[in-house]
Amino acid sequence: MPEEDDFTVTPYAVEGDIDYDRLLDRFGADALTEGQIAAFPDPVHPLVERSVFYAERDVEPFLDAVSEGSTHSIVTGRGPSGPLHIGHVVPLYFAKHLQDQTGALVYIPFSDDEKSFLKDVSIETISDRSRENLLDLLAIGFDPDRTRIVVDTADADVIYPLAVAFAREITQSTVDATYGDPENVGLSFYPAVQATHLLLPQLVRGRHPTLVPIGIDQDPHVRVCRDVAAKQRYDVDKPGALLSKFLPSLGGPGKMSSSDEAPSILLSDDRETVFEKIRTHAYSGGQSSVEAHRKQGGDPAVDVSYQLLYYFFEGNNERMEQLASEYRNGSLLSGELKDIAAEKIADFLDEHQQRRQQLGPLEDELQQYRLTQLERETARNRAGYPDNSLTQQ
Amino acid sequence: MPEEDDFTVTPYAVEGDIDYDRLLDRFGADALTEGQIAAFPDPVHPLVERSVFYAERDVEPFLDAVSEGSTHSIVTGRGPSGPLHIGHVVPLYFAKHLQDQTGALVYIPFSDDEKSFLKDVSIETISDRSRENLLDLLAIGFDPDRTRIVVDTADADVIYPLAVAFAREITQSTVDATYGDPENVGLSFYPAVQATHLLLPQLVRGRHPTLVPIGIDQDPHVRVCRDVAAKQRYDVDKPGALLSKFLPSLGGPGKMSSSDEAPSILLSDDRETVFEKIRTHAYSGGQSSVEAHRKQGGDPAVDVSYQLLYYFFEGNNERMEQLASEYRNGSLLSGELKDIAAEKIADFLDEHQQRRQQLGPLEDELQQYRLTQLERETARNRAGYPDNSLTQQ
Repeated sequence: MPEEDDFTVTPYAVEGDIDYDRLLDRFGADALTEGQIAAFPDPVHPLVERSVFYAERDVEPFLDAVSEGSTHSIVTGRGPSGPLHIGHVVPLYFAKHLQDQTGALVYIPFSDDEKSFLKDVSIETISDRSRENLLDLLAIGFDPDRTRIVVDTADADVIYPLAVAFAREITQSTVDATYGDPENVGLSFYPAVQATHLLLPQLVRGRHPTLVPIGIDQDPHVRVCRDVAAKQRYDVDKPGALLSKFLPSLGGPGKMSSSDEAPSILLSDDRETVFEKIRTHAYSGGQSSVEAHRKQGGDPAVDVSYQLLYYFFEGNNERMEQLASEYRNGSLLSGELKDIAAEKIADFLDEHQQRRQQLGPLEDELQQYRLTQLERETARNRAGYPDNSLTQQ
Repeated sequence: MPEEDDFTVTPYAVEGDIDYDRLLDRFGADALTEGQIAAFPDPVHPLVERSVFYAERDVEPFLDAVSEGSTHSIVTGRGPSGPLHIGHVVPLYFAKHLQDQTGALVYIPFSDDEKSFLKDVSIETISDRSRENLLDLLAIGFDPDRTRIVVDTADADVIYPLAVAFAREITQSTVDATYGDPENVGLSFYPAVQATHLLLPQLVRGRHPTLVPIGIDQDPHVRVCRDVAAKQRYDVDKPGALLSKFLPSLGGPGKMSSSDEAPSILLSDDRETVFEKIRTHAYSGGQSSVEAHRKQGGDPAVDVSYQLLYYFFEGNNERMEQLASEYRNGSLLSGELKDIAAEKIADFLDEHQQRRQQLGPLEDELQQYRLTQLERETARNRAGYPDNSLTQQ
């Protein structure tokens, strides 16, 4: 088998040992430069500074808009799944961080339709999960004036007409080549819905730079949408992308997934559970005995507790260097490093859970984040539906 | 080339000399029997009595419901096109005839989304055509209490969630095999929308027999939907179908289409134009001179004026026999037969146009035919969206 084919990364499958540099060649994206990293507002989020977000498409127009103070938006979506784990909300908290810094508009498409297409789970189950997941999303605390949450089936009055407009720009052969042969006609259509998600900020607010922070496995969706935008039938720029490596799972390096064997840390886990999961399951870069560890030291590069701190939960660079150094020289034990990570994560979850508990009923809380009637009409209008269209109610 | 392949009938292409009996073998539908024809309520519509509707799938449960007086529905759709011609409204007037006789529920899906997928026409043009076509549809005079008109993009709040539910039941390979490889992802998805159309009456009103009177070229849509229903995931019966031959175009036998070379008779044509079009363009079964015609007579079987009367515009059987006999023996001239047909058609259009002129603004008139909020919720509910789903607003 040729070297190029020893790993697979598509929106629906991630397999093998991923070579992130070769993936950029394969996808045609660019590595994030030092200059681009430095152009993010201060303090630069660890995910960017430490190259978890390591590649980009058209990030510069977004950064220019940030520095000029002109309109700019972030799109970061979720699909309803079982209980959310921390990997699910990392990009959402990243978006919240940028919104706090720059006043970015944040659009959060919630793709319950895709879940129906992908898995043999009942619509009732998907609906229940949607309600739970949306409460977690609301608990993040986005600014309601600058944030819109769009649920595909519940906001179909705007999502479907827009997807209809974009669908004819996307050939079936593009979808086959990009994703592999889709199993059902829903999955065939879904790239048109995803294009709708990524273009929605511009359809609502007019042409402006959009950034999509996204796992690199989701990049094909961005590419398909950029091709739609490039056809210039609509008054939109191609959305930019900020592409991330995969967060480690507790069991070791690789994509954190709810279906891995090692348990994930759930947003609903209490302190005790967090400590138990990390102590029991977090892959360690340390030695097999305390004695050996004191002598030979550990390897932070493969230690999942260290990685979790590095990627997201410890923003202080000096502290991270100190931990790495102490771990390498053996003065910091594996169990101690685990407890440091568990403490940070448990604190994070405590705060998240407290905000979630303070929420009122979902419908009431969600209302302030929904598209207004005028925004819906404006978006349909910019997609080509005239003022007298029956679609404009 | 084998005998089976010398004509093509799909929803997107009708070519060659159609052998309607062989088409039934190909599609796996059954010819309408004498007994079934006689079971239609009296007077039987000429389209049924004279075998323009010549084949069926599960017509008997529908006829049983008619005779028992239990709930039964008809689904007959339209897509927005340029000015409607008489061929477009024949199935709609047929549905109106049955509704008047039996109190049938009539559901009319209006597929503006499919037009976007099919043709490179702007959404603005499609919207304008939709408004015009809907006024013609309203002019037919359906009973608002028993009729629902659903516009795909304007009623996306119910159409899209339902199509999502059905899409995962339809494989892409089924669509490829049924329709040929679709050009864009909208056409891939559209069979799920069409299944939604055909199942909508049962989702709104509960399980009951549905009949879809439809050109036989559209039968694949019915088959795909019947396969979805057959999976028993939803509480619906397979919709039945009443399949028609193609109405002749003025230029000769074959499907009447707006894109044929001979002009079509438009719903907006005045008397003078109807006479002019028929006199100039209607294919004649008569002889080339009056003298020859008086001697040899004409052939009603290929005469388009005769066919138009036979298929739709002259319900009186004795009168049709008299015309055929006089035409064959040469006492009725071709020009006289043309004027008889033109007179009937012009009368029909006069009445249609008068009803259209009496309509108020489209939005006001359409309102009484739209799904109520409760009907929308009920349909989403039966498709699997629970009461607490965000899709239920």
